This record gives sequence, C-alpha cells and structure tokens, in this order.
Amino acid sequence: MMEDSTKWMQEALKEASLAKDKGEVPIGAVVVKDGTVLGRGHNQKEGFQDATLHAELLAIRQANQTLGNWRLEDCDLYVTLEPCPMCSGAIVQSRIRRVYYGPHDLKSGAAGSLMNLLQDDRLNHQTEVIPGLLQEDCQDLLQSFFKDLRARKKKEKQDRQQE
Amino acid sequence: MMEDSTKWMQEALKEASLAKDKGEVPIGAVVVKDGTVLGRGHNQKEGFQDATLHAELLAIRQANQTLGNWRLEDCDLYVTLEPCPMCSGAIVQSRIRRVYYGPHDLKSGAAGSLMNLLQDDRLNHQTEVIPGLLQEDCQDLLQSFFKDLRARKKKEKQDRQQE
Repeated sequence: MMEDSTKWMQEALKEASLAKDKGEVPIGAVVVKDGTVLGRGHNQKEGFQDATLHAELLAIRQANQTLGNWRLEDCDLYVTLEPCPMCSGAIVQSRIRRVYYGPHDLKSGAAGSLMNLLQDDRLNHQTEVIPGLLQEDCQDLLQSFFKDLRARKKKEKQDRQQE
Repeated sequence: MMEDSTKWMQEALKEASLAKDKGEVPIGAVVVKDGTVLGRGHNQKEGFQDATLHAELLAIRQANQTLGNWRLEDCDLYVTLEPCPMCSGAIVQSRIRRVYYGPHDLKSGAAGSLMNLLQDDRLNHQTEVIPGLLQEDCQDLLQSFFKDLRARKKKEKQDRQQE
C-alpha cells in the first residue's frame, strides 16, 4: 500500500502541474487533516501579479476558509519545494503541525537550508519538518520547466536577430 | 512642515484604528510610492479567520493590484509594529525599498528583534529599515487595546461568577 504521505505529495505535485500549465514556476501545496484535503494551492504569482500568491499561502488560506478557523492545528502541509521565509512564517502563524517538502531550496529555503523558521523556539509555534519526500519528482518538474524556459528565451532571441 | 514619513505613519495609524474598531489587534500599514498611497491594510485575522491577513500582507497585495505588478520597487512600507517573519518575507518577495515601523516586537519581530529578514544578504533582496517612527502613538494604541481586552475579560468572569 502506498504510504499516505506519498499520496498527499502526489496531490501537491498535481497542483504544481497546474502552475506549469499556466507558465508559472511549478510549485504546489496541499493542507491535509484526518485524511482529507482542506486546502490546495499552486504558485500564481505571475498570473495575478501578486507577490504573495505562493502555493503554500494559497493552500493555507483555503484551509482556513474550509475550517472557518485561522488555527490549522492537527493539519499537515505538503509542498513540492522547501518553503521561503514568507511561507514558513505563514506556516508558523497558522500553527500547522507538520510540513513535508520535496527538495531543499538552497537560494531561499527557510525550513532548513538558509534558516529554520519552522523550528525556532523563540517563536510561539514549532512544526515538525520532513524534507525530501518525492524529491526527484518535484525536482524533475522544476528542472524541465526552467529548461523549457531557457530554450524558449534562446529561440526568441534568435528569431529577433533574424528579423 | 510635518515630515512626509510622519504623515504616512499617521495613515498607517488610521488603518490600525480601523482594526481596533473591529475588535482586532490594532496594527495598520500603508505602501507609498512618489507621494501616493498605493495600498492600505489593517489586521483582519480574527474577522476573516485567515492567518495571513496581517496589515502588511493586505497593504502589499493592494499595492500589487494598484500597480498591476508584483514588484514594488521604489515603494516604501509604513507599519505600526515591527513585522513578523511572514510579513518580512512578503516585504522581501515584493522588493519593497524601505520599511518604517513603530515599536519593536520582542516576541516575533523579524526586522531587527528576533532576527532581521529584511537585511539578510543570502536572500535576493534587501530593504532599508527605519524603526521607532511615531513609536509612542503606535504603542499607546496597542497598550490601550490590550488593557481594554483584559478589563472586558475580567468583567465577563465576574459576571459569570455572580450568575
């Protein structure tokens, strides 16, 4: 039987694919409680030109709405890339119990890479953190997105030079 | 002539008063560019039961909408309390130029107190930070809110005991 945590990360990966389809950096997240998805989100920063529309923030806000409660106690978040400082702060604010993520983000990861805001005992909430879940699937999606993006930009440049 | 920075912090204080009127912790923020307010926000976390509805996040999102751009370059943010990690992360994400705030927040301030996410050179953007602007006015509003809250809770307890 597939482990539940793998199943939920696959749901987060489906969200990431939706971002990719919209030309957004493919990152997805879901919030889960007692075997039910309470909130889903994928990166929509470019489409809405809103700096806060990361996958995690959208999934947290939807879970808040579903429960009618800003407290997401006993909820777990699955996200396809290590959260940035903003999203890590939102995870602490909403008191999420546990965070599973795919690969580390060495440039701006705030759940173990550059810092660990999820386990800072000076803040009023700490979260369990489980990195590396379906890491390769998450990474493959990101790498193919950036590879396509570079190829498209290169082609655009060549087309402009031929005009 | 009143300094412009004082004028804008007074706008943030007006937002904080709106939060107080709704029974929310009175924190307000404005985003300003070239002498114009592009976004305003006040804490609405309890009313909407949304963990992300801090003053700063709302002001940033409104400024993003006003400009049709997630980049708030050459924009300054004024907020009546030192930003938390989530809001500091959003300030970095949106590339705000300068942040003015009132008092330090020793419990969760992430712009100088517990940490300084606004000036972490490992992240891809750094912000100027000016603390202590109209600090006493900001602090008075917060203290009177919490004093009233304690008095109300005490009275409720006494009323229950007399029933």
